[in-house]
Amino acid sequence: MPPLLSPDIPACSTPVTVLRATSSGISSRDDLVATEEPLEIQVSYEKRGLRVVRSVSVTMRTPGNDDELAAGFLFGEGLIEKPGQVANISAAAPKDGAGSQGNTVRVELSPGTEVDLGSLERHFYTTSSCGVCGKTSIEALRVKCGAPPTAGRPTMGFSTLLRLPETLRSAQNAFERTGGLHGAALFDASGQLLCVREDVGRHNAVDKVIGAQFLAGRTPLSAAALVVSGRASFELMQKALMAGVPIFVAVGAPSSLAVKLARQFGATLVGFVREGRFNVYSGAGRISAQQREPITP
Amino acid sequence: MPPLLSPDIPACSTPVTVLRATSSGISSRDDLVATEEPLEIQVSYEKRGLRVVRSVSVTMRTPGNDDELAAGFLFGEGLIEKPGQVANISAAAPKDGAGSQGNTVRVELSPGTEVDLGSLERHFYTTSSCGVCGKTSIEALRVKCGAPPTAGRPTMGFSTLLRLPETLRSAQNAFERTGGLHGAALFDASGQLLCVREDVGRHNAVDKVIGAQFLAGRTPLSAAALVVSGRASFELMQKALMAGVPIFVAVGAPSSLAVKLARQFGATLVGFVREGRFNVYSGAGRISAQQREPITP
Repeated sequence: MPPLLSPDIPACSTPVTVLRATSSGISSRDDLVATEEPLEIQVSYEKRGLRVVRSVSVTMRTPGNDDELAAGFLFGEGLIEKPGQVANISAAAPKDGAGSQGNTVRVELSPGTEVDLGSLERHFYTTSSCGVCGKTSIEALRVKCGAPPTAGRPTMGFSTLLRLPETLRSAQNAFERTGGLHGAALFDASGQLLCVREDVGRHNAVDKVIGAQFLAGRTPLSAAALVVSGRASFELMQKALMAGVPIFVAVGAPSSLAVKLARQFGATLVGFVREGRFNVYSGAGRISAQQREPITP
Repeated sequence: MPPLLSPDIPACSTPVTVLRATSSGISSRDDLVATEEPLEIQVSYEKRGLRVVRSVSVTMRTPGNDDELAAGFLFGEGLIEKPGQVANISAAAPKDGAGSQGNTVRVELSPGTEVDLGSLERHFYTTSSCGVCGKTSIEALRVKCGAPPTAGRPTMGFSTLLRLPETLRSAQNAFERTGGLHGAALFDASGQLLCVREDVGRHNAVDKVIGAQFLAGRTPLSAAALVVSGRASFELMQKALMAGVPIFVAVGAPSSLAVKLARQFGATLVGFVREGRFNVYSGAGRISAQQREPITP
């Protein structure tokens, strides 16, 4: 059992005793590690007049903002489209009646909201299934994606974009303590921080940020930039596109499929933002040398 | 369409044209990004005299060593235990008959090998489900894990352990080119590199390393150290334990659940190996100041 949390240590970090080994010797010290716990996401909906509860996912996450995580996950999967479809999100008992409290969240859909949970089940086998299934998931995404990025808008200045990772890092309180949390943040085109979330899973951090916006009725995020502390994968790019985000900024490297997806949707994809420079893999027209001029070679 | 690969560019990296933006201007250049493509893993087995093919997982991976990835995944899930249970692993057509070639691998189980695919399906909903299900997955792991680490063995020297990340990094050829690949490597207790694999997914890199050893008949890996280029999560620790690995070294931070799992199984967990020092979260008895003396504070 971990020690009880003191009031000033939030649930996102867990105290541990650790041995620090250096060339001059070994010392024991109290440290903090990023909290990782499973979250079961349940969906409750009406079917032929009866309310049905289904467990749709379990993800290893850092506790906190579980309602946003659940909403962002379901929105990213295309299961819900508008906040009005969600009647309530609350902690719940696990589906099988056993297990620990606090690690199950139930999304209660409004009466009349129909969901295709079959698509979610298929998703477990086909995930980001470009080219594996008969229908590529890029095509499927095109069908599901309600608000693809608008060409040329918004525009973000070179120096504004350069500052985003540092702003994200400064806002990552728990990373500072544990060194073990991915960060995701939403900015407007002027570089103003709108929302930041942290998690041991980078997809969870993105789900939380987008879920918060979804619940506040702010999706699609057609004027925003999403910044992640790590790399850009297909899955993260897919989540950003489902939310209509036109500018995706990764502090680290993008994958080939993230680049392909960004180009097909006309989204801006930036990577390797460090030491006064960055790489633009797609959609350079949204980045200006100052705040206005587009950067083209 | 990406340009055709030149003979000296392996499939693990993909050429892209990128705009590099610096304060002194913008320039276009040819670059390489880590290749990310889906892999469908199929299992073929006999049931009442008939051969059945089932698709059990799709993972976003970097192409290469797909046979090891498939074997490592199935072994990590406890579906197969010995290399003799695998008759053949080969590229296959996708289950639904469409989609791209080269992204499906079929593991043909030997006649008489029985598999519980139900446990895999439950896994999709319960993943690493400590405390979510009635039975915690730590208990479940204890049941499945055939060769838990032996107390006190092997012993690795302080300075040997310190060198492992640098050796891993030097062996990561594709990371050098793309900056976008996780690495996993297996070492013996003297610090000799036994196997290294890279992937956009860190769990895939670990599956490939362990799968290679499984197929070569070298599991359980009860004298080895597994080193990962990033963080230690519950999932990675679980894979290491299923393979009997006693020493797990993460260049980055561990999560709370990775620490808990390592302690419950008596495995050694080391993190933050950098600048001549590291943290020991569990099992310090396997680390010696020189090659012999245990380090205790």
